[in-house]
Amino acid sequence: MLEALKQAVYEANMELPRRGMVTYTWGNVSGIDRETGLVVIKPSGVKYEDLTPDQMVVLSLDGEMVECDLNPSSDTKTHLELYKAYPQLGGIVHTHSPYAVAWAQAGKDIPCYGTTHADYFYGPVPCTRHLTPEEVEAGYEFNTGRVIIETLTERGIDPAHVPAIICHSHGPFAWGKDAAQAVYHAVVLEEVAKMALFTVQVSPACEPAPQYIQDKHFMRKHGPNAYYGQKG
Amino acid sequence: MLEALKQAVYEANMELPRRGMVTYTWGNVSGIDRETGLVVIKPSGVKYEDLTPDQMVVLSLDGEMVECDLNPSSDTKTHLELYKAYPQLGGIVHTHSPYAVAWAQAGKDIPCYGTTHADYFYGPVPCTRHLTPEEVEAGYEFNTGRVIIETLTERGIDPAHVPAIICHSHGPFAWGKDAAQAVYHAVVLEEVAKMALFTVQVSPACEPAPQYIQDKHFMRKHGPNAYYGQKG
Amino acid sequence: MLEALKQAVYEANMELPRRGMVTYTWGNVSGIDRETGLVVIKPSGVKYEDLTPDQMVVLSLDGEMVECDLNPSSDTKTHLELYKAYPQLGGIVHTHSPYAVAWAQAGKDIPCYGTTHADYFYGPVPCTRHLTPEEVEAGYEFNTGRVIIETLTERGIDPAHVPAIICHSHGPFAWGKDAAQAVYHAVVLEEVAKMALFTVQVSPACEPAPQYIQDKHFMRKHGPNAYYGQKG
Amino acid sequence: MLEALKQAVYEANMELPRRGMVTYTWGNVSGIDRETGLVVIKPSGVKYEDLTPDQMVVLSLDGEMVECDLNPSSDTKTHLELYKAYPQLGGIVHTHSPYAVAWAQAGKDIPCYGTTHADYFYGPVPCTRHLTPEEVEAGYEFNTGRVIIETLTERGIDPAHVPAIICHSHGPFAWGKDAAQAVYHAVVLEEVAKMALFTVQVSPACEPAPQYIQDKHFMRKHGPNAYYGQKG
Repeated sequence: MLEALKQAVYEANMELPRRGMVTYTWGNVSGIDRETGLVVIKPSGVKYEDLTPDQMVVLSLDGEMVECDLNPSSDTKTHLELYKAYPQLGGIVHTHSPYAVAWAQAGKDIPCYGTTHADYFYGPVPCTRHLTPEEVEAGYEFNTGRVIIETLTERGIDPAHVPAIICHSHGPFAWGKDAAQAVYHAVVLEEVAKMALFTVQVSPACEPAPQYIQDKHFMRKHGPNAYYGQKG
Repeated sequence: MLEALKQAVYEANMELPRRGMVTYTWGNVSGIDRETGLVVIKPSGVKYEDLTPDQMVVLSLDGEMVECDLNPSSDTKTHLELYKAYPQLGGIVHTHSPYAVAWAQAGKDIPCYGTTHADYFYGPVPCTRHLTPEEVEAGYEFNTGRVIIETLTERGIDPAHVPAIICHSHGPFAWGKDAAQAVYHAVVLEEVAKMALFTVQVSPACEPAPQYIQDKHFMRKHGPNAYYGQKG
Repeated sequence: MLEALKQAVYEANMELPRRGMVTYTWGNVSGIDRETGLVVIKPSGVKYEDLTPDQMVVLSLDGEMVECDLNPSSDTKTHLELYKAYPQLGGIVHTHSPYAVAWAQAGKDIPCYGTTHADYFYGPVPCTRHLTPEEVEAGYEFNTGRVIIETLTERGIDPAHVPAIICHSHGPFAWGKDAAQAVYHAVVLEEVAKMALFTVQVSPACEPAPQYIQDKHFMRKHGPNAYYGQKG
Repeated sequence: MLEALKQAVYEANMELPRRGMVTYTWGNVSGIDRETGLVVIKPSGVKYEDLTPDQMVVLSLDGEMVECDLNPSSDTKTHLELYKAYPQLGGIVHTHSPYAVAWAQAGKDIPCYGTTHADYFYGPVPCTRHLTPEEVEAGYEFNTGRVIIETLTERGIDPAHVPAIICHSHGPFAWGKDAAQAVYHAVVLEEVAKMALFTVQVSPACEPAPQYIQDKHFMRKHGPNAYYGQKG
């Protein structure tokens, strides 16, 4: 079942090592079939060089195992919470890419210092709060998802406008209309996080780019009158 | 038409990923045929792995489409302004290479800290001012070109002596006698920007190289008595 | 003799250049056969591209040469001390990987800033004290092993919970249940050391991750109820 | 003539791009035949991908062209001064490798922070003073050589014990018993310069490694009782 989605999620997972985004097994990509409500995700702890499309695990949005010879990613419940909260998401990815992790470990939003960032993320990439000891105890991965949603909600962020977040002391999650675009956004996030670190090294007191420049760049790629790229 | 120029611009574009200068589609190279006044430029948003020479877009210096099955790069009007202002330019490139972007995002000139820089850029690589909200509104890419020209003019910089600039909160543009040399200068700029960042990390109060050493190195490669490389 | 162990130690050594962990010959991996008490280790100063499984040197735990056409690694006595002190160790590796060396040269523990670290190392990765002039004189490599053991003992660290250490002004040693896992831990250490440096660059006053988050991540991979990866 | 030396110098030059030590043509390696007093060096400005062994230029120690279809490296006179001053040198290399350049641009010695450094360089890698305007005018490359010699002499440094130097605002020169070893030392220097920068980033006030540890590591590789590597 869901052979095309399994293949797509497999390909998106394999893009992570190709793009230098993962060490060993430190990443997982999922995709969802919105018609059936079934989620396809990487199995936990399987090496990328050994991964095959048919090993992809299939679950319902409530976490019921539908097709799973292997255990799903340990972060599965975070993915499921995000799919439930945001119907527009078609793919999600979690990595430990080092520059994004650095900002997450520092507990700081990644400021929008320039147009590379503004082309993809409208405003800073937010950093969540820490989970409480009670939240960790009650369901770490589930509550990681809840705290991501809380952060976006409290800040009034549309996940389509800021397709990534960093979790304090942990690392990034990114998403998109499908698994491939989620990985694309994770790669952009890592590049933007690297540029932001280099920027504060050049100038520790650096200010974000002016809002009207952020608006311009985001809108020329994503607004109703977007004119970047080819049509149709 | 312009098959040789299309091929040359295509090759120069393909050099960007080979040199590790671009993530995804974040770069564009153009070249100009000064006899006909026609500009050849990369189409917007096309992946490098899918790019072919015949996809190159042909426009007049006034931006009239001459041969364009695809939309030209979204930065085309910046290229056109530079070609109009500086008849000696044969090729132009824009990238988001991360070290050059860091200096651009910090809004700082890249100081000439040593001979690697002085071999190619005579004095600091300047950083432009921000565009005003009115300039962004009235024509972002056109005015990006105008602000580059304003910066060079106000500082009395001959673009043949400093073949690159960084735009505040955005990134670098580089140029040369043709598309290949423009890319060469963009690669040198990125290396020089990296060395400059490392230098201020070793010594935050570092001073630029003495002027007479900057003179010597630029002149041994570019002056009337240049003696670097082979003749003819 | 010990053909399988020689092959395994050879493979673990060859993983170092594949993972970008060594410049020239700057690393050595060993493994132990606990039944016979024999240790297999890389010969000293042999290039990785010339290395073969049968060149691996075999010694007793007391350092008696059993099979050794070539000199063993100059760090052999450090390995032997660790094997004698910790019966649970099956493999040991020493490298000069640059980020781990930076923390070692600075003489600082690598703090646990996040979950990437906590997934493998329970608490900071400790940095030893300097050897005294007398210890250097009396037996540098032997006493390097003794000071590692002293550090773990004084801090009450179980080497199975923190499978690596950094030696002041020198570099890292890592270990595991076998040679392959030792190298795995050395690669993780380098990645964690890199992320920790980036983290203090983003935020010099950064605090370690909360203890309950460190507990959660270490335990979900290593505790009695671990649920990361596949069973059996 | 000197076919074997030309081949060796060619191979040493080609090792530079293989080791990621050069951008474009930013490096040159030479070797000397002490019997005839002839020096073989890379031609100036030739791309590594186009280089062939028979293009190597042959000169006398006084700079007389013996076999030179192409111009020799623009830095040739620096090489010649070093060969004349130090009969033990068999090969010399100049690069613009970025971490060594950063220390050179900052005008700072590279401190010996640890054993990776001490294994090859006995004490800090010195940084020269700037050439004076008169020295630049009278003969830039010749006087670069003279200032290197002045620096080593004033500090009482045996070039066999510190086989590299960095020139203020410029970059590194390294040397060895032959061209291959000179390149080896240039690669080690770059790695050591990188580790030193990371070290001061972890701890800006970091002290050099204790002298007795520097002694131990240099001597176990280079002293009369050296025991690193294989004999004979």
